Parts: sequence; C-alpha cells; structure tokens
Amino acid sequence: MSISVKGFKAASVSCGIKKSGRPDLSLIYSEVPAVASAVFTKNSVKAAPVLLSMKNSKNGCISAVVANSGNANAATGREGYKNAEKTASAVAAELPVRLGDVFVCSTGVIGVKLPVAKIIAGVKAAARRLRPEGLEEAARGIMTTDTFIKTAGAGLKLGGRKCGIFGMAKGSGMIHPDLATMLCFILTDVSISKQMLDAALRACVKESFNSITVDGDTSTNDTALCLANGMAGNKPVKSSGSGYNAFLKALSSVMVSLAKQIVRDGEGASKFLEIEVKGAADEKTARAAAMAIAKSLLVKTAAYGGDPNWGRVLSAVGNSGVKFREERIKIFFGGLKVVSGGTELKGFSEKKAHLALAEKEVRITVDLGAGKKSAKVWTCDLTEGYIKINAHYRT
Amino acid sequence: MSISVKGFKAASVSCGIKKSGRPDLSLIYSEVPAVASAVFTKNSVKAAPVLLSMKNSKNGCISAVVANSGNANAATGREGYKNAEKTASAVAAELPVRLGDVFVCSTGVIGVKLPVAKIIAGVKAAARRLRPEGLEEAARGIMTTDTFIKTAGAGLKLGGRKCGIFGMAKGSGMIHPDLATMLCFILTDVSISKQMLDAALRACVKESFNSITVDGDTSTNDTALCLANGMAGNKPVKSSGSGYNAFLKALSSVMVSLAKQIVRDGEGASKFLEIEVKGAADEKTARAAAMAIAKSLLVKTAAYGGDPNWGRVLSAVGNSGVKFREERIKIFFGGLKVVSGGTELKGFSEKKAHLALAEKEVRITVDLGAGKKSAKVWTCDLTEGYIKINAHYRT
Repeated sequence: MSISVKGFKAASVSCGIKKSGRPDLSLIYSEVPAVASAVFTKNSVKAAPVLLSMKNSKNGCISAVVANSGNANAATGREGYKNAEKTASAVAAELPVRLGDVFVCSTGVIGVKLPVAKIIAGVKAAARRLRPEGLEEAARGIMTTDTFIKTAGAGLKLGGRKCGIFGMAKGSGMIHPDLATMLCFILTDVSISKQMLDAALRACVKESFNSITVDGDTSTNDTALCLANGMAGNKPVKSSGSGYNAFLKALSSVMVSLAKQIVRDGEGASKFLEIEVKGAADEKTARAAAMAIAKSLLVKTAAYGGDPNWGRVLSAVGNSGVKFREERIKIFFGGLKVVSGGTELKGFSEKKAHLALAEKEVRITVDLGAGKKSAKVWTCDLTEGYIKINAHYRT
Repeated sequence: MSISVKGFKAASVSCGIKKSGRPDLSLIYSEVPAVASAVFTKNSVKAAPVLLSMKNSKNGCISAVVANSGNANAATGREGYKNAEKTASAVAAELPVRLGDVFVCSTGVIGVKLPVAKIIAGVKAAARRLRPEGLEEAARGIMTTDTFIKTAGAGLKLGGRKCGIFGMAKGSGMIHPDLATMLCFILTDVSISKQMLDAALRACVKESFNSITVDGDTSTNDTALCLANGMAGNKPVKSSGSGYNAFLKALSSVMVSLAKQIVRDGEGASKFLEIEVKGAADEKTARAAAMAIAKSLLVKTAAYGGDPNWGRVLSAVGNSGVKFREERIKIFFGGLKVVSGGTELKGFSEKKAHLALAEKEVRITVDLGAGKKSAKVWTCDLTEGYIKINAHYRT
C-alpha cells in the first residue's frame, strides 16, 4: 500500500482467544487525539464493547482502538461490560491516552465470556509492537471467518497538502445492512471538523456497507469508525465545498472497496453479484427492489448454478413492496437482455443467458421503466459452502 | 383417509408438461356449485391463473378446480391470461359447470409459455377419470419439488349431521407468508354462508400458512381455496356460535396439518423446527420475533449442524424490530433452558444442548419476559440439499 497516513501506528498479536493460534488482537494508536465519527449496529442486542464505544466516541475524540477477534463479548451481561472497560483500561495503562478516548471492539462468537486476562496481556504485547507499518497486520488481527485481509487506501490533496486515507474491514457472514457484520476502521491524517466527518461517514456508509448483503442477518457488534488526526496539516475542512467533496470522494472509494471485498469474501461465495435497479421513480424504490433481489435465496442459488431463471428475479421485485407495472419491466443478465415488457424476450437464448451467469462477476439489471433513478447493491451467491461454514461454526 | 366429503370428485393425469411423465394436471369437481372462499399471493407479480381465479371467485361460487404443475403461467403476458381462460373453457366444455365458476391454478417454473394444447387434452382425460376416490390422486398431480403428497382430513358433526373436510396442498420451496408458495384446496360438504366461510378461512390462514417459512420468498402463484358444497345437509352455518366454532376448529386442524407438512417437506430440509416466542406484550410482537428467528439463515444452519449457538437466536430477536429487555430473555432448546437473564445459564452443558438440537423435531422457545402473549411458527433447517435443488431447478 503506497498510501501514507501520518501519525498512526498499529500492531496485532495472538493473545490466545483463537484456538488456531492466529492473530486475534489488534491495536491502533494515533499520536495525537483524532476527531472520531462512528456508526454502530442497529441490532437491539448490542455487544458490551459497542455500548462502551458508543459512550466513548460521544465526545468526538479517540486516541486508540483495541479490537479482538474470536469472541464477540455480546450477551455477556454486566460482566461483559466490565470486561470491555478492563480492556480499555489496559490500553490506557500502556499508551499516553485518556481512558475515555479508547475505542473497544470485539468480533466472534456471541455469548461466551471474554478471556480478559489474555486480552490484557495481549494489549501489553501489542503496545510494544506498534509501528506505522503495522496497519496491514492490524487488519489481519480482526479476521474471523474471513479468508483474506481487507484493506483499501486513497490519497488526496487538500490545499497543496498530501493526505491519505487507509481503511481496514472484516466480515463475511451475518452480513446485512445496517451495517453488515463487520468491523471497519478508517484512518486519515486529514484535518476535518467533527461535524463534517460525521456527514461524510454517514453519506459513505449508505452507498457502501448499507448496500451489501450476504445472508440478511445483522450482527450485534457491527461498527464502522473513522479517525481523522489532522496530521496532514491541511487547512481544516469545516464546511461543504471543494475540500469536503474531495475528501468525500476519497472516503467513498475506500469504503465501497471494503464493502465489495466483504461481499467477495461472503461465506461460501463462488460469485460476486452486482444488482442494479434503474428506471425507478425514486432512489428509495430502486434500492428496495435491488435489495429484495440481492436477499432472495432463490436468486442467489440460481446465480450459483448459472441458471438464467429470470422469473425468480421478477418474483423478488414483486415481493419488495415496490409498486411497478409488470408490462414495463426489462431484465438483463450481464449485457444480455432476457426480459422485455415483463415477459421473456423473443429469441431468448438459454445458452447465452447461462453463459452470462457463468462468470465469476455477474451483473443483474432490472429496468422498472418508471423513472430515472437507480441504485446498486452487491451480494454473493449462496452455495453449499455457506451451509458448511455455518452449520458447525462453534464446534 | 376415512374422512368422507360428499359430492366431490377428482382425478389427475399426466398431460405432458413434466418431462418426467409424472402427473401434472388435476381436476376437482363439485356436483353442486360450492360456496367458495379464497386467499391469494401478496406478491405484486401475480400469475395469469391467479388473476383469472381472483375474478371468478368474486361471485362466491365455484364448481370446478383445474390445476397444472410444472409451469406457473406467470410473467407470460396477455397470452398467458388467454391460456388460463382457454383452460377454464376446456373444463366448462367437459363438465356441467358455468365458465365463470371454474377456478384455475398453475404451479411450476415462472416465465415459460403454458403448453395449452396439452392442458386441454389433459382436462378431457381427467374429466373421464373423475371419481370420489380421486382426491389423493389429485393431490399428487399438483406436486412440483414436493417429495410427498400432502393431505389432511377432519370430521365433525353439525346438528347431528356427519360432515367432512378434506384438504390437499403442495409446496416446499419459495415458501413464506403471505402465503407460502403453495396451492391448497380444501373441500367440505358443510353448509355455510360465504361470509362465515371467508371469516373461517382468513382466521385459519393466519395460524397455518402464514405461520410458516422455508426460504423467505413468496411466489407469484400462491392460492388457498376452500369450497363448501353444503351436501352434508346440516342447518347452514350463518353466524358465529357453536356450529361455526366446531367448523373453525376442524378447518384449523386440517390447515395447520397441511402447513406443517409443507415445512417438513421444505427443500433440502433435514429437520422440522417449531419456534415459539412467549412472554410478549402482544401477539404481533411475539409473531414478529418468532418469524425473525425462523427466517435467520444462521439459526437454520446452526439447527442443521445441531450447534447450540443460542447467540444467533438472540441476535435474530434483536433484528426483528421488536422492543425487549435483553436482561429478561430466556431461551430454551427443547425442554432445556440455555439462557436466563439474557446470558448463558450457569452450568450450561454444550453436550446436552447439542443433544436437544440433534432431534429430527426441534423446539426453540424464547421467553421475552414482558407479558403473557405468545406465537408459534414453523420452519425447517437449511442444508446443502436446498442449494442443490435450487441451483439447478430448470436444467
């Protein structure tokens, strides 16, 4: 990654939560307190670290992030919350940060007591390893069923100053807006006000993590955090305008890249699916229809089998609650039109349609013929691999 | 089936829609016009026969039902509607019934032109085979991916008269309220007014077909029809009271049995799951929470693997939109309490919990600790079999 983001150090260690011995604790540190913006799961069951981090990020400033994988510290009661606090204390003991400026995350199995002694020892070890080149390593330490590291970067210039954005994410199952089962940490040296950072994060979440689904389940631990430490030295971004727009564009590219990586790594996925609904009267309609297609198990299994079963796509739109006129619908697999006027195109070639679906990256496009708005969402196919991974996750 | 239902005849034939040569056309005839009540799919894409049958059942009277399997006649445009009309005409040509009193159903692949010549020939052949003992055979003719025939019966006495109810249904994929991908025909010789039959059907649909889910998809063809021809000679049921209640109870037993059979035959299912949410402030809340659990792919795969991952159950409730206090939640697998106060019960035995989930019939119970209302829904586990069936359905 050629992107440089000033003032951040990171590391990961194996502290013994994962039986496999793989890295399971990551630490990120900003040399100066960073402006912080975060969005959290909308699941009403929120993990202990989510509750603590919601509280700690309220003042708008975070200096360190500690995240463990292999244990979600969710549904663990009061003791779980105390364990999240102990984790934060361990960080404050090792690094020159205020206790209230520590952001704590956990991801993994729900309902198992956090082995907090291991975590405290891990924090000590990680603090000693902290270094600017440690960001990739930190991305590895938050993985659970992920099969590859998810990072993305973008550079931008603000008033002549070179700035950078680096993002890391984890997640491959229990993925659905809002937010998707995931942790996402975005680090930037841009100087920006809390208000504008909040606005940018919210705008980008909508078109990235809230535009993906793997299995329709939203986890108890979902968190996306953006830290801006201002060390690029640009004139602070305090209002909308060209500087804000440049930041927004760069942030969006990082977050959309991470969101797509999560879907590509969807549990058991063999294919990446891009669903676009266009010709809608408004964007909300387009999004609802696209998400209904993306969520349909029948569409996802048809994509897996390369079966050009457009009827399932049409039926999913019919189930979306979206109003439309069937006789105006067009459906495309890749570039191939298969439905026009709500029914199979004359000369429909099953073979060609099958080939369009046989690709590793499949585009399904539905034109509602009712307007000019559109929306894109991303998902993956549903295969035996998903069943295998999730039928025996804990054992 | 020892249940006798006077005045109905039925038959099925193989008319050549299914390549396998299995029965694919069923005909049901009532010797006298029957009071008819029907509910239809809420998918906004409605198959041609659904549109025709909605129209024909409006007058409250049906004399014959014709249903083909192997082709849904959905998303087939104007020609599809004409083909449904031609099917009805074929029935009216063979039997002493009014054209407007024919109920037409189709089930199978969406978007393929109905081979109407085959259907017309099939109607002729089926009309010749009509007989009182043909009801089971008619149940076979509507099967698609079903692996067994689904029928249920109940007897009751009204004012000293012996009455019967016979029901048949098909469905195993694309199953979700409202209604479930299914066809269901219920035949009774009870004499009952249209108004009371409507009330009874609606009440029973809620606790039967709208309480099941297999894969969260609602088809374009779902239909449940109840025909009451009055040939039992009972004093007509025209208002609520003991006669209506006896009918309601018998109808409910038939419809719940059929609904459970559909779930038991869920595509790829290896287990039957009963999800009960109790301790809710109201029934709507209980139902929403139960359905959220039943729909969760993570719960369904955990059930398949016999993995007592109660965190997924709790997380699903958290995603249901239902308000509850986490610290009051109790969760049971079978009779075994695994969660109390929102967290794992002290002395939780992974082995015992695994055994509770290793059964073919699994009960998952959640007590919200917030009231006295409850709801039960039924579903099945999610296995590789579902993927296999649906990845290659058409090929």
